[in-house]
Amino acid sequence: MESCKLSKALMRRLPLYLTHLKSLPGEDRNVSATSIANALGLGDVQVRKDLAKISNAGLRRVGRSRDQLIHDIEAYLGFASQSGTIIIGAGKLGQTLLDYGGFETSGLNVLAAFDLHPVADRSASGKAIYPMSLLESFCKHNNVHVGIIAVPPESAQSVCDRLIACGIRAIWNFAPVPLTVPSHVIVQNEDLAASLATLCLHMQHRQKKLEIV
Amino acid sequence: MESCKLSKALMRRLPLYLTHLKSLPGEDRNVSATSIANALGLGDVQVRKDLAKISNAGLRRVGRSRDQLIHDIEAYLGFASQSGTIIIGAGKLGQTLLDYGGFETSGLNVLAAFDLHPVADRSASGKAIYPMSLLESFCKHNNVHVGIIAVPPESAQSVCDRLIACGIRAIWNFAPVPLTVPSHVIVQNEDLAASLATLCLHMQHRQKKLEIV
Repeated sequence: MESCKLSKALMRRLPLYLTHLKSLPGEDRNVSATSIANALGLGDVQVRKDLAKISNAGLRRVGRSRDQLIHDIEAYLGFASQSGTIIIGAGKLGQTLLDYGGFETSGLNVLAAFDLHPVADRSASGKAIYPMSLLESFCKHNNVHVGIIAVPPESAQSVCDRLIACGIRAIWNFAPVPLTVPSHVIVQNEDLAASLATLCLHMQHRQKKLEIV
Repeated sequence: MESCKLSKALMRRLPLYLTHLKSLPGEDRNVSATSIANALGLGDVQVRKDLAKISNAGLRRVGRSRDQLIHDIEAYLGFASQSGTIIIGAGKLGQTLLDYGGFETSGLNVLAAFDLHPVADRSASGKAIYPMSLLESFCKHNNVHVGIIAVPPESAQSVCDRLIACGIRAIWNFAPVPLTVPSHVIVQNEDLAASLATLCLHMQHRQKKLEIV
């Protein structure tokens, strides 16, 4: 478990395993990788490898303890939930992210959004939207380590700088501009237009046998 | 240009180049890769490689023709815009995508959204939201090849099947469930919770020297 590779694909599958395991009838005390794989339409080997990465419960032929597996997956995902996350920019995209149910299902901790001029002080799901002037004190008093940037491109770098000054160590950037950050800060870029364009080109180039990476 | 690799990172940079080139004063007829790199905070070699991939304008020391470069980048991105795209699910996420300005800036063609029970017939930016009953005839009469799935997970597979029956060849899936598709259909999964969880874990595991892939 110590030397595991963490892949985004694994992080996609873990919540699926969790939902499936929790949906099983109470009398199913043990589960096999094969039964999970069959139920979710995944490969046997894949499921076996995934579970070996996140759980020490062993690979017995009789199957693993379902409760132990649920516990191990939750503990693993819970690791992520220790990272308090805030969103900067409470426009349509920012509010969609603030109210995105999938984060909570995965145990992720999106605390609030901030905006220069909040149009409301709560989102549709009741999460707080604060004015930017409160950013520094909020970060100081809460355990905030991750910032999501959902502002227009021209404001992204200055928001980024301000987040880093607040102690943010990881940034998920939805603005389609490159950000300059010090080496201790991780940036994950999410450019929706680039994603769609890549998919479109991928499809159209397929027949032309161009290699897409 | 024929044997190029298309990367998502390249698709992120092309709109940046375009915006920069268009922002230059009219008398700048030639631009060098170095000047573009400096203006955008990118590496020289990177810009040179990118431009070589998408343009045959050559690599002269005096620089490339700005107009030719703008033309080549637009033609390249325009390739993607030939793929009419629709969104299934006009909830908060679907409407965010429908009104996402970045798609149009990149020349992408998001035509409309569909919903079982549309709450309005237009989005905030004026794009059409149709009832699902019109899906088949819309796809038949428009050049639709790409579908974005923004419905709850339990409906995702049935929506996917229906899109494929309509002739859709590429699917961008925002529902956090795996989709089963025939081999001629491309699926690109976008699990926002998995993305955020991966970022959080990446940050936390960094000091533990676990390898993140």
